Amino acid sequence: MLPVPIYDGSVKDVLPDANLELVKGIKHYIVENVRTARRCLKRMVPSIEISTLQFYELNSHTRPEEITGFLEPLRNGEPVGLMSEAGCPGVADPGASVVRMAQAEGLNVVPMVGPSSILLSLMASGLNGQCFAFNGYIPVENDKRDKTLRELEIRSRKNGETEIFIETPYRNAKMMESLLKVLNGETLLCVASNITAPDEKIITRKVKDWRNKGFDLSKVPTIFLFNSGI
Amino acid sequence: MLPVPIYDGSVKDVLPDANLELVKGIKHYIVENVRTARRCLKRMVPSIEISTLQFYELNSHTRPEEITGFLEPLRNGEPVGLMSEAGCPGVADPGASVVRMAQAEGLNVVPMVGPSSILLSLMASGLNGQCFAFNGYIPVENDKRDKTLRELEIRSRKNGETEIFIETPYRNAKMMESLLKVLNGETLLCVASNITAPDEKIITRKVKDWRNKGFDLSKVPTIFLFNSGI
Repeated sequence: MLPVPIYDGSVKDVLPDANLELVKGIKHYIVENVRTARRCLKRMVPSIEISTLQFYELNSHTRPEEITGFLEPLRNGEPVGLMSEAGCPGVADPGASVVRMAQAEGLNVVPMVGPSSILLSLMASGLNGQCFAFNGYIPVENDKRDKTLRELEIRSRKNGETEIFIETPYRNAKMMESLLKVLNGETLLCVASNITAPDEKIITRKVKDWRNKGFDLSKVPTIFLFNSGI
Repeated sequence: MLPVPIYDGSVKDVLPDANLELVKGIKHYIVENVRTARRCLKRMVPSIEISTLQFYELNSHTRPEEITGFLEPLRNGEPVGLMSEAGCPGVADPGASVVRMAQAEGLNVVPMVGPSSILLSLMASGLNGQCFAFNGYIPVENDKRDKTLRELEIRSRKNGETEIFIETPYRNAKMMESLLKVLNGETLLCVASNITAPDEKIITRKVKDWRNKGFDLSKVPTIFLFNSGI
């Protein structure tokens, strides 16, 4: 399982040498999008000969019955690389389905180290890393979103659990509005944007301080974390 | 924030070159244990001059009032490295407290990529990576452990959330016993041992299959994951 950079910078900043070495020996790739995967492999190993590689697309258009065929090389002892569009495959992307299938057949699955916005933001937030939950996307409708945020805050207060979730960039401002409206003023809220990019910003403040200070939440990839139990 | 290897192998297998470059410019380190941190830095940058470095120990013996002093170089514009004993600092270790303090003062916190047994096992498990919770350690007493596992299974069934937790190696067998007793036979259970080591083993099976097949759970670092919602 081959993580890919989150930000379009140097691959050496976020991937160990071992990953790049491994890529040189893999001819079969399960990817979300062939075009971006080709470009990414070229950045990882500039000397790679793309035309000799076999790609299998796994995304919302893939029919479930196709997926089992993607594992055929692995059944024959040939390594298959799994890549997502950004970050670690199988986490917050559709990759887990094919891994589950491989596990069910007793095939060997090897995870490689790489960037995860969930883990990196958690590390830098200063929020509880001994107990945390990634909740994916929160409902979009105002009422449902507020209700979900309230429930997560109760859970966080009870267990001391850090609550983590994502939003599509153009809804960041709306999400922030809900957070500042719904959450307790003493709750610690971390907003982490453009992780691993030169303009990365990871800031943790009490909700009441976010309310008082001005902030500019642009339409950039952002992950939100909060903890009410500290 | 500088992750360190989980397993005592090559640092190039699990750390990007950027991390090793960064270490060359850092003179101040907050660490859990000075002796192992010295050894680890030497492995990361063999040419490093350990005697020129300043170490600050942050562990269960550190008094809270000491911690703020550890950030003094950072206040003066000098970088401070934060390292844990294994894996990513601030996740499943005491490092978060000093990060929270740095965030409260508005100091810049930069997370670097590295190995996390939580994330790597989740990737390779094939279990839901769009919604998951890390629960740290589960209670040790039999009754409490069984009760907690039952509660987590209910939560997993409700949300489709993958439940992740750790155990001290010598209690692995006891934990496995509880899991196989308490969980539903159809629940998918992943047992991940020795992550990133040559004898890494990450296996996902239905609980009923774990019950039927023999398995040898030695006293090695292990992380457990299950999902009842799939």
